[in-house]
Amino acid sequence: MNHTFESFLNETKQLIERELPEYVRSLDAEYRLKEAMLYSLEAGGKRVRPVLLMAVLDAYKCPIKDGIEVACALEMVHTYSLIHDDLPAMDDDDLRRGKPTNHKVFGEATAILAGDALLTHSFSLLSEVSHLSAETKIQLVSLFSKAAGARGMVGGQLADMIAEGKSLDVDQLASIHNRKTGELLAFAVKAGAIIAGASEHETKVLSAYGKEVGLLFQIKDDILDLEGSVEDIGKPVGSDVHNDKSTYPGILGLDGAKTMLSNHYEQALQYLDELGLRHTLLEDMATYIVDRDR
Amino acid sequence: MNHTFESFLNETKQLIERELPEYVRSLDAEYRLKEAMLYSLEAGGKRVRPVLLMAVLDAYKCPIKDGIEVACALEMVHTYSLIHDDLPAMDDDDLRRGKPTNHKVFGEATAILAGDALLTHSFSLLSEVSHLSAETKIQLVSLFSKAAGARGMVGGQLADMIAEGKSLDVDQLASIHNRKTGELLAFAVKAGAIIAGASEHETKVLSAYGKEVGLLFQIKDDILDLEGSVEDIGKPVGSDVHNDKSTYPGILGLDGAKTMLSNHYEQALQYLDELGLRHTLLEDMATYIVDRDR
Repeated sequence: MNHTFESFLNETKQLIERELPEYVRSLDAEYRLKEAMLYSLEAGGKRVRPVLLMAVLDAYKCPIKDGIEVACALEMVHTYSLIHDDLPAMDDDDLRRGKPTNHKVFGEATAILAGDALLTHSFSLLSEVSHLSAETKIQLVSLFSKAAGARGMVGGQLADMIAEGKSLDVDQLASIHNRKTGELLAFAVKAGAIIAGASEHETKVLSAYGKEVGLLFQIKDDILDLEGSVEDIGKPVGSDVHNDKSTYPGILGLDGAKTMLSNHYEQALQYLDELGLRHTLLEDMATYIVDRDR
Repeated sequence: MNHTFESFLNETKQLIERELPEYVRSLDAEYRLKEAMLYSLEAGGKRVRPVLLMAVLDAYKCPIKDGIEVACALEMVHTYSLIHDDLPAMDDDDLRRGKPTNHKVFGEATAILAGDALLTHSFSLLSEVSHLSAETKIQLVSLFSKAAGARGMVGGQLADMIAEGKSLDVDQLASIHNRKTGELLAFAVKAGAIIAGASEHETKVLSAYGKEVGLLFQIKDDILDLEGSVEDIGKPVGSDVHNDKSTYPGILGLDGAKTMLSNHYEQALQYLDELGLRHTLLEDMATYIVDRDR
């Protein structure tokens, strides 16, 4: 990892980890609800969505603090989706990032409500960004709700459940992942472009780059799930295999998955090339996702 | 019920029941997810929030179709809250409006996701109202997310759970109900005022009227729960008592609850008086809530 990118990652993570809890702590709401929301918000993670958004701002020489509200809204929606996905009725996971899942600590009912509250609050956050015009904010609300909703993340989650135990081909698997995680990652990139005032064409190409990044993320996760250790990835090794879920290495073999990873990495860089954005943090970001060992 | 109000109720219900499913049917999303969303959206109900919103529009001589998108967004959020509240981890209800609850038909995982999708989609709907300015839409998103979130409905739901088995006084019970249902009903009224272009003062007084209506609704529900029959109210009689929940008749006795109902009815009418809005559908609405027998 090059030095500039490493400082950028650290700076962004620190900013997010400082600001994110404040949006919840300042709420006039039940103590127990806020505790449950904060527990999962503060559980760490790679903060990939904020990092992506802010890498776009940086590539357009825009101050990264201009993206803080939207970045925190993204983390709230990502976090709510993890809380609900971990529930006994869904993936029934006891551990997340090496810590007990939300419902294990606060009980199922509170976990469901904490997720609902995080999702709802993300829209409060978007509606209150003081430095954006009402037009821009409404555009963000529209894109965000599409990426997170039935057409995007929630629909992808259901498709993923339905697909359990079925054998999928690579296109079907990629279509599920695109909805389940790709749409929100693409929104992070698109939101950065919109906040930075990029053109419609640039926003479109960046959004395509974002979808590639989502795919890279998932393929690499599947590879790590097979090769990694529980210390490294914070959940039991091979848990996807035990859950009877299709994975890229499962369909293509480990070498095939690695080839696919490298092809989509090239595609992501090509989109950046098209916009003259090679050798920015956006390239570093794609490289980081592909090279990480956890 | 007077004739004008009865036709208005029917007209509004018909409009909502025609338009509401369309917003889901037209979604490019998993069939099973849409089925689960539609099942609960189409399960009927009094459509109180749309009716309130549209009664405000009518009082201001604004066409009621100007409120259709926001009214449908309100029904989506109300419906999602019912789906999640009925879950085994929450109230564990098998029946809702005389029909099996969502998770009984589609399973818990799909019910959780259908709720999430309805909540998320309500914001898509708000962001896409073509006849409102971006400023107005962002104002609605901000108010709506507050009314529905940790400070409002979701927080009220958790407070309600925490209060189970505890003996509350009337103020504590009213504070819980205000968050759990009052805030969203007040938003319905406020949204009507904003769409109709009412002044800030008018909007504030109407919002206070909306909170009174929320209270009337809950007190009357508690009374019906005690006095009604399962055919009339679509759920087992006295189910709140069995759930060990505080109710107005439980705290004040049946007569005390009826006196409280009548006092808040007077207060609601006084707010309307202040705005010269007596003898409008808004008065009929308050009367209807208090007089209904189911």
